[in-house]
Amino acid sequence: MSDHRIVVVGGGFGGLQLVNGLKGTGAKITLVDRRNHHLFQPLLYQVATTILSTSEIAWPIRHLYSNRPDVTTLLGEVTGVDTAAKQVTLRSGLTLSYDTLVLATGATHAYFGRDEWAPVAPGLKTLEDATTIRRRVLLAFERAETEIDPVTRDALLTFAIVGAGPTGVELAGIIAELARKTLPREFRNIDTRKAKVVLIEAGPRVLSSFAEELSAYAQQALEKLGVEVHLGEFVTDCTAAGVKVGEKFIASKTIVWAAGVQASPAAKWLNSPADRAGRAIVEKDLSAPGLPKVFVIGDTASVVQNNGKPVPGIAPAAKQQGAYVAKVIRARLQAKPAPGPFRYWHQGSLATIGKSAAIIDFGKIKLKGWIAWWIWGIAHIYFLIGTRSRFAVAWSWLWIYLSGQHSARLITQKETMREEN
Amino acid sequence: MSDHRIVVVGGGFGGLQLVNGLKGTGAKITLVDRRNHHLFQPLLYQVATTILSTSEIAWPIRHLYSNRPDVTTLLGEVTGVDTAAKQVTLRSGLTLSYDTLVLATGATHAYFGRDEWAPVAPGLKTLEDATTIRRRVLLAFERAETEIDPVTRDALLTFAIVGAGPTGVELAGIIAELARKTLPREFRNIDTRKAKVVLIEAGPRVLSSFAEELSAYAQQALEKLGVEVHLGEFVTDCTAAGVKVGEKFIASKTIVWAAGVQASPAAKWLNSPADRAGRAIVEKDLSAPGLPKVFVIGDTASVVQNNGKPVPGIAPAAKQQGAYVAKVIRARLQAKPAPGPFRYWHQGSLATIGKSAAIIDFGKIKLKGWIAWWIWGIAHIYFLIGTRSRFAVAWSWLWIYLSGQHSARLITQKETMREEN
Repeated sequence: MSDHRIVVVGGGFGGLQLVNGLKGTGAKITLVDRRNHHLFQPLLYQVATTILSTSEIAWPIRHLYSNRPDVTTLLGEVTGVDTAAKQVTLRSGLTLSYDTLVLATGATHAYFGRDEWAPVAPGLKTLEDATTIRRRVLLAFERAETEIDPVTRDALLTFAIVGAGPTGVELAGIIAELARKTLPREFRNIDTRKAKVVLIEAGPRVLSSFAEELSAYAQQALEKLGVEVHLGEFVTDCTAAGVKVGEKFIASKTIVWAAGVQASPAAKWLNSPADRAGRAIVEKDLSAPGLPKVFVIGDTASVVQNNGKPVPGIAPAAKQQGAYVAKVIRARLQAKPAPGPFRYWHQGSLATIGKSAAIIDFGKIKLKGWIAWWIWGIAHIYFLIGTRSRFAVAWSWLWIYLSGQHSARLITQKETMREEN
Repeated sequence: MSDHRIVVVGGGFGGLQLVNGLKGTGAKITLVDRRNHHLFQPLLYQVATTILSTSEIAWPIRHLYSNRPDVTTLLGEVTGVDTAAKQVTLRSGLTLSYDTLVLATGATHAYFGRDEWAPVAPGLKTLEDATTIRRRVLLAFERAETEIDPVTRDALLTFAIVGAGPTGVELAGIIAELARKTLPREFRNIDTRKAKVVLIEAGPRVLSSFAEELSAYAQQALEKLGVEVHLGEFVTDCTAAGVKVGEKFIASKTIVWAAGVQASPAAKWLNSPADRAGRAIVEKDLSAPGLPKVFVIGDTASVVQNNGKPVPGIAPAAKQQGAYVAKVIRARLQAKPAPGPFRYWHQGSLATIGKSAAIIDFGKIKLKGWIAWWIWGIAHIYFLIGTRSRFAVAWSWLWIYLSGQHSARLITQKETMREEN
């Protein structure tokens, strides 16, 4: 075993793919994450919308590497990097020395400088975000059921989603289905089918990373589910009473933020140049400028494709970067020539709208409708980690498909009416 | 449909059995609970110990009655009862008028007047309690992994459980197994097998509701798993540093409270006589003294069996009481003679110790070991609500049985190191 120390910060798609790719190199790898679990983020919106349960899409990171004695997993929050001393500092005060460092710390949602909107318009990046949104959506229906004032009741039954990227579209579709198909028979005083789901997008179309015809199809599918789609409109305020769109005010007690991305502070830690979203601008081999032993990958790296377009902030891109940097490090450790510059291969884009519509954009091939939905489902089950989760998620989906009933409809955490203990 | 209004407070085992038993009476039933879900409490310790996930043992109450137009479900916390005006008051200010009232509000854990212990020694009654304990147990191992001071590390690796009833025994058994079987290969700096699980009981034996021979077997099974059993010892203090047992101090960063039960304030709401644990003393038909149209059932009622012993605070007893009161109410509505006084039929007691030991006390028949464990498992799957959960729990257990790996090992909620948003 060599004594080359590799510190990897972040156990997301990029970080895991990197650690997987370093198997057998003999380097001593330390994987640090501030959460104890890897999260399958593409399905997080399904936790927020009562379809899946938290443990179906998250796995303890240290369990994934129980068979890799070369990998040490640490739960800790990185607060800075000393590139001169080659050390990473954790909030606990612990420092980790590295020979090679890989920052794969991801991104979070951003409020365009209006962070005061965060409490009333939660975003969707962590399991807690998902259970927060789930709680708020379910509580809105519960409160509407006992609300006597019709104006308040309407505001409780209005769900505003800001941002029509995949997350916003998927949330809007399922909340609409929940209101129209799952819940109606369970309430006695309100008609949940009258709930309004409003999707607000500043750009000219939904799912702008897809081909225009697929965007149009997605919008139709949303509208068929009863979603009100507002395009080309900017959110100017979010409060507990509702959302202001341009000069219009939409009374809504439940706002979900699915717009805006802010990279983690990796670039700041390195004193490296960053793009507008805070992503570190990296060299062609994904190393930081002037720091050949420090790599930045995934959503916190700003990488440009040959066609001049930026590499998108999606799971397959992060995985490709993790696999690539593993190759670069392996070549160095074995004193072999370095691989050529990183090249992103776009495998395609997928998104779902509710229970049986989806769109897939493979570039030349474009699919929509139920075929796309099945491909989407099978692909996602395939990419889940571990046999157990695949069975569990497949079972949950099959159950919903057959019974129409969502299973994970629990209101938990602090905003409930439980006695605090 | 008659216009007899029945208000049922509490959607636990007693409340649900009552509502089920009232099917077809035509009465207008309102079921109020401060949580949106019914909880299968006998398996709650498995959520606390990373075996099951929250949605596998909890179901939205209103979903259970979607096919019963006579049942209205309300999420709300009852704060009092006006027996003269026949009204129930909710915290929201809402009042519900009743012709018949059934209080099935259960019990919570009690600290024998030492409520200041609650923050350091959480009990196990709600889903949040379970995820709190899960988080603390998992975080203790995580922190021990990076702890340099050996004294602190030992305190982090010492788990103190107060109370050796079924919950305490089940928690101790699984935490010991987690440390000895599930986790060892995943940590690099600590040997999780050296973790100490201490079970502290004031009485002379563990599981005192079982026959002595079964208690003895359970204690042996615990000790085989490495649990340190302290009998006849009283906890005199709980702090963030550990637990004081008599004059001894056990340094422990993770304390779980599984002792002491305190009834909900149902007796207070009614101004009714109560026993020492606060349970309302009821008539032979489970009505409150002097209030023939108000019934109290389940853990919040104090009922004495013919043999002079109290009816135990367990799920089957609550269910029997719910079914009985449904019969009483049905007879009244149909102007038929009332059934005889309530009689509790003890079907037996079950408890598990870790992955393949259990004890069953049917009175004459006593079982232990793996046969008991299988009966225990099948019985619990049978009593779960809904096909989906039965499959999901069976699958989770089968997976753990085959792979030895617990699936629900997520650290969530506020004490984690996530950035607050």
